Amino acid sequence: MTTSTADLDLLAERAAQAAPVLAASSAAERAAWLRAVADVLDANLAELVAIADEETALGEPRLRGEVGRTSGQLRLFADVVLEGSYLEAIVDDADPAATPPRPELRRLLVPLGPVAVYSASNFPFAFSVLGGDTASALAAGNPVIVKAHSGHPRLSARTAELAIGALAAAGAPEGSLALVEGRAAGEALVQHPRIRAAGFTGSLSGGRALFDLAAGRPDPIPFYGELGSVNPVVITPAAAAARGEQLAGGLVGSFTLGAGQFCTKPGVVFVPAAAEGFVGTVTAGAADATGGRLLTERITEAFPAGVERLAADPAVRVLATGSGETAPTVLETDAAAVAQRPDDLLEEVFGPTTLLVRYTDEAQLLAALDAVPGSLTATLHSEPGDDVAAVLARLSDRAGRVLFAGWPTGVAVTWSQHHGGPWPSTTSGHTSVGATAIRRFLRPLAFQDAPQHLLPAALRDEALTGIPHRRNGRLVG
Amino acid sequence: MTTSTADLDLLAERAAQAAPVLAASSAAERAAWLRAVADVLDANLAELVAIADEETALGEPRLRGEVGRTSGQLRLFADVVLEGSYLEAIVDDADPAATPPRPELRRLLVPLGPVAVYSASNFPFAFSVLGGDTASALAAGNPVIVKAHSGHPRLSARTAELAIGALAAAGAPEGSLALVEGRAAGEALVQHPRIRAAGFTGSLSGGRALFDLAAGRPDPIPFYGELGSVNPVVITPAAAAARGEQLAGGLVGSFTLGAGQFCTKPGVVFVPAAAEGFVGTVTAGAADATGGRLLTERITEAFPAGVERLAADPAVRVLATGSGETAPTVLETDAAAVAQRPDDLLEEVFGPTTLLVRYTDEAQLLAALDAVPGSLTATLHSEPGDDVAAVLARLSDRAGRVLFAGWPTGVAVTWSQHHGGPWPSTTSGHTSVGATAIRRFLRPLAFQDAPQHLLPAALRDEALTGIPHRRNGRLVG
Repeated sequence: MTTSTADLDLLAERAAQAAPVLAASSAAERAAWLRAVADVLDANLAELVAIADEETALGEPRLRGEVGRTSGQLRLFADVVLEGSYLEAIVDDADPAATPPRPELRRLLVPLGPVAVYSASNFPFAFSVLGGDTASALAAGNPVIVKAHSGHPRLSARTAELAIGALAAAGAPEGSLALVEGRAAGEALVQHPRIRAAGFTGSLSGGRALFDLAAGRPDPIPFYGELGSVNPVVITPAAAAARGEQLAGGLVGSFTLGAGQFCTKPGVVFVPAAAEGFVGTVTAGAADATGGRLLTERITEAFPAGVERLAADPAVRVLATGSGETAPTVLETDAAAVAQRPDDLLEEVFGPTTLLVRYTDEAQLLAALDAVPGSLTATLHSEPGDDVAAVLARLSDRAGRVLFAGWPTGVAVTWSQHHGGPWPSTTSGHTSVGATAIRRFLRPLAFQDAPQHLLPAALRDEALTGIPHRRNGRLVG
Repeated sequence: MTTSTADLDLLAERAAQAAPVLAASSAAERAAWLRAVADVLDANLAELVAIADEETALGEPRLRGEVGRTSGQLRLFADVVLEGSYLEAIVDDADPAATPPRPELRRLLVPLGPVAVYSASNFPFAFSVLGGDTASALAAGNPVIVKAHSGHPRLSARTAELAIGALAAAGAPEGSLALVEGRAAGEALVQHPRIRAAGFTGSLSGGRALFDLAAGRPDPIPFYGELGSVNPVVITPAAAAARGEQLAGGLVGSFTLGAGQFCTKPGVVFVPAAAEGFVGTVTAGAADATGGRLLTERITEAFPAGVERLAADPAVRVLATGSGETAPTVLETDAAAVAQRPDDLLEEVFGPTTLLVRYTDEAQLLAALDAVPGSLTATLHSEPGDDVAAVLARLSDRAGRVLFAGWPTGVAVTWSQHHGGPWPSTTSGHTSVGATAIRRFLRPLAFQDAPQHLLPAALRDEALTGIPHRRNGRLVG
């Protein structure tokens, strides 16, 4: 199924018609709409998970958990909208005695208009039709047109059908949500005059192509893309010595989770040259591991090709190859080679593989870290006695979230969560997960000397008492 | 004077060296640096204004006021940094009982790294070397490299010299601020690997070219540009009848202020077809007005060319031509023509001219407003009995600041101020003036399960008590 140009035009016009209605809706209305969508997702969990498992092979337990995360995310954004801080309301009262006299100014954030959302292959719920981009764009008061991912078309269509029905039943305007299918429609969508912003999760090549289309428009629009990430991990000599076995088990669990198809999979692990125990346990664990089916045909073809390309590099050794449809693989190289040829050695390979990078001393480690591309996450496993200042400075510079325990796969959706990092992991200085993701789909609007009745409802004196805001420079809770 | 590639590389390397030092500086340190720069500007006001007047012909009173605005802006950002809300600190405590167990997460905003700032011609202080882009980028903790405007090279050099000296004396790291000159250096700057973001105020053509260079990089960077604005004004029949003379006087004052070279100059004024009194007074006022020298040779050549191109349009009439080096000019057309051919009739003409657009009824007015390009401001002059809902919806959609009294020229720098609007007035959903302009030069960074001593100072428990933040979903003032 593909969406024709005429159909896309129709959907975009409907979204444009819905935009002012959504923009004028109250926080309570939008919160109710988001919760209605969350409820319909939960109510149809069994049916949706069954379709999703047929299309993605991610397995029922993982997919059930993902539905819970997705409906929870929609409900979090309902809370965010009701709480009201996201409006960033600021009032400066008039000061006629100032030189020059100061007018009254009231500012808030307003929705941008119709938003294009590009679904991801690897999270058929949490980063797809009703994922974080859709939830935050709707919460902000924007209509959304989702480009379905070709890896789960039936799930996309059914999810959209349920959500569109729930939105209509809850009173949201027609055109609040729509679905388009096919690559051509996806390319036309980001260039459509009615579309005011885009959210994307996917590959570097696909994301870059859409980014270029968004930036090349006569009227460029913001493109919030998450494009790929190697998620470096550093293990200090002391940590390897103190808890090498435990870390090795954690790493194998993390890089094979979901068949290695998480955006936050630890793809590059910096390991002391002398940490034979850790490396041996990782090797044994990976050799024992079994890999299942990958998400799509394209990914299934790209995985062995990526592993073979790396394995053919003279600086790389294959340490372990597991079993199953997609064999988990551990590769090894050294930090000097990474520092010299990062483009050859640090390209993301989507699937169950990780690259151990052996370093002999801190200077070598730091030089290699300087070559790591921008990532969603970076993980540091150290011991209390370690001096990690220099390593931490580099990890903070290269990533959006720095972990000091555990592994980067698994992203709690909370107020503080951040999913994003320097290019190419994301295209912008914003997050795609967590409460503040809503900021991407809003713009500031100020009103000067407005009569109260002509202000947006949220900026009137009686409404302001109910939301956190700033007045004359002071925060008012 | 132009900056060579080798010199640019050297300055960029120095900025990159300064970046981690600035990022690690305390709020108190950065506030002191900003105030030191503000002080040196004020202390050298007489010398700087004299140079500026020679180079721009804007006149001493205006330039003195602009220095005050500029030093005030630097001090506002010192306040913003000390207040701490701009960090958007958010903490979610660990919840080991949750399923899955929730880690501790702490998030704040961190500086992006070296920022390129492109000076504007029309505000040699407030949007130039030490203007709002520089103030907000430095406040955020980023080194700044300013591209001097060719319209005021001596002022740029002297301002930079004074500021660099003041920063050094106050203890800021070398490389915190630098100046480059020449078009080639400007183009190389936005593409330089060390530069992480850019701020720009200038023409649509120049801004678009730099935007395209920023977006076309192997690693695209955010380009915060302000590119041009026609700033529509709507006068209702009731307002024209009630206070036509007063409004006419205000309009003439506003569109000729600073020789019509404000970004917020009212360039298109929607006037009732029957408002002969208003139009007559504007015409008479403009015919009596005298225009001085324009900022640069290029602007001096472009102004009459732009006026003549418009005047040659069959739908346009010249109502008044004043006297002086640059004759203030009032043109007139009708709303039906604007709705049909907005590209011909609504192109910004930089300088002392405005276009009166006569409308016969609301339907015609609304159709014409739909064709108005995105603008920094929109102004609505109405009377209490008017039903302005439909007009206001369109103005809010097309602009970043909506005024209900006065005129858009003159921008108070306050917490709530907003300077920005839909394309082409700006490239982004952010403001370039006011406290929140700092957000453009920051990105989120989260720390998961970090030991207290490894957190950035601002995120440690003892520091958090001093800054507004959110903890477990609740704002803590």
